[in-house]
Amino acid sequence: MADVTRVGDPHDPRLADFRDLTTADRRPDRPGGKGLVIAEGVVVVRRLLASPYPVRALLGVERRIAELDAEVDSAVPAYVTSAEVMAEVVGFHLNRGVLAVADRAKPWTLDDLTAGSRRLAVLEGVGDHENLGSLFRNAAALGVDGIVLGPGCSDPLYRRSVRVSMGHVLAVPFTTATDWPGALESLRDKGFQVLALTPRADAVALNEVRVDGPVAVLLGSEGPGLTDEAIKAADHAVRIPMAGGVDSLNVATAGAIAFHSLGAG
Amino acid sequence: MADVTRVGDPHDPRLADFRDLTTADRRPDRPGGKGLVIAEGVVVVRRLLASPYPVRALLGVERRIAELDAEVDSAVPAYVTSAEVMAEVVGFHLNRGVLAVADRAKPWTLDDLTAGSRRLAVLEGVGDHENLGSLFRNAAALGVDGIVLGPGCSDPLYRRSVRVSMGHVLAVPFTTATDWPGALESLRDKGFQVLALTPRADAVALNEVRVDGPVAVLLGSEGPGLTDEAIKAADHAVRIPMAGGVDSLNVATAGAIAFHSLGAG
Repeated sequence: MADVTRVGDPHDPRLADFRDLTTADRRPDRPGGKGLVIAEGVVVVRRLLASPYPVRALLGVERRIAELDAEVDSAVPAYVTSAEVMAEVVGFHLNRGVLAVADRAKPWTLDDLTAGSRRLAVLEGVGDHENLGSLFRNAAALGVDGIVLGPGCSDPLYRRSVRVSMGHVLAVPFTTATDWPGALESLRDKGFQVLALTPRADAVALNEVRVDGPVAVLLGSEGPGLTDEAIKAADHAVRIPMAGGVDSLNVATAGAIAFHSLGAG
Repeated sequence: MADVTRVGDPHDPRLADFRDLTTADRRPDRPGGKGLVIAEGVVVVRRLLASPYPVRALLGVERRIAELDAEVDSAVPAYVTSAEVMAEVVGFHLNRGVLAVADRAKPWTLDDLTAGSRRLAVLEGVGDHENLGSLFRNAAALGVDGIVLGPGCSDPLYRRSVRVSMGHVLAVPFTTATDWPGALESLRDKGFQVLALTPRADAVALNEVRVDGPVAVLLGSEGPGLTDEAIKAADHAVRIPMAGGVDSLNVATAGAIAFHSLGAG
């Protein structure tokens, strides 16, 4: 049961975590950044409550807080207010009626991520927050055990990624590669077969690939694709057979096809 | 070579087609609707020029019109102006620098669509313009020959769908089913195996399905999914194996997985 408090004043200092949400999710070293993890809507707040991220507080309209009440620890304050006060505090109109903020948790390491994992995704240059969020959603749905973020990837804990992922960035473990493409060699050393997904004509068609051990799928951004050095550090280059004249699929969609295809093998 | 004309006055009557673009794509029977097909940006305009839709005119900044010049028929006027005048005419700021408008073309019939087709997608209740656009993009990339729109689907020629599809709604033939679920029976009569994609536990896993003839994949919207009557009218219910606790994939992503999986068989 949450510790529910009614708040009527948008300037109430207890609501400080919820102010200016458009920048509060930035890392503390960025302008306006507080490094907070922000969940919006009942479904995503529920995933945050079930995640390893330490929840600081909830803010919502009465009905939404009531829906979540049983799942909230008694040490976590839940502030009930009106939709109007919420909008004034956060800086824009929210149509989901509830928010929760959490602190960042200790990041996973590559060793944490690989221990016991059978399937990983490795991303290079995925800077778009929506694509990143969609990739986490697809990874969660299709049984990917963890995600390694290579150079050029955005922060998956940004509010928009959390929202587009439907909260699955809070559930799928991830780590940032500190060595590149060294992280790919580390994965191979740990027994992962690394498959680089690329539209190159000389790549093997995805449906002809059979894996029977741990596998890591390497995905690049839509425009430039994977770097040559990343492709070289993989075991194989694989491609999704495409119809003539079509440039490419969205990276999250390509990832979903690969996760399904390799999981089903 | 286009018939290029410079225009400086945002009130020039020759630019009438480009006014109030936020409503001009609506069907003529809707408020503000002109029933126009609108393409934004060089890539999508190029697809419009290669499509069966009769292009009425182009409007763009000099550099973008020059890029497209060689592909434009001499009977089509191309108006060159500044970014500021463009914004004033269309009613919002455009960052792609070029637009084209076309008339709607004679719609395909179900007979047109099935003739010579091996793979179709059939949609029920896909009302979201972005999902619809993404479905067309994925269908084009993965070799789907045509799309049948069942009840509850949006108009794929709306501007947002055209844009999200990257212009592929202009290339993939589609038709609206007039009889439902009768259209599914018609497809079966024409020799198509109709597979209904659903998360139901008693459905066959997609990777266990083997098809060796024409196939139609039936997809429903994310929330409510397919209606019972649609599933009953299909040959088989098939499912994408999902990890526990994850509700569902985006409909365009689920479609992409199915198109790839069935195409690769």
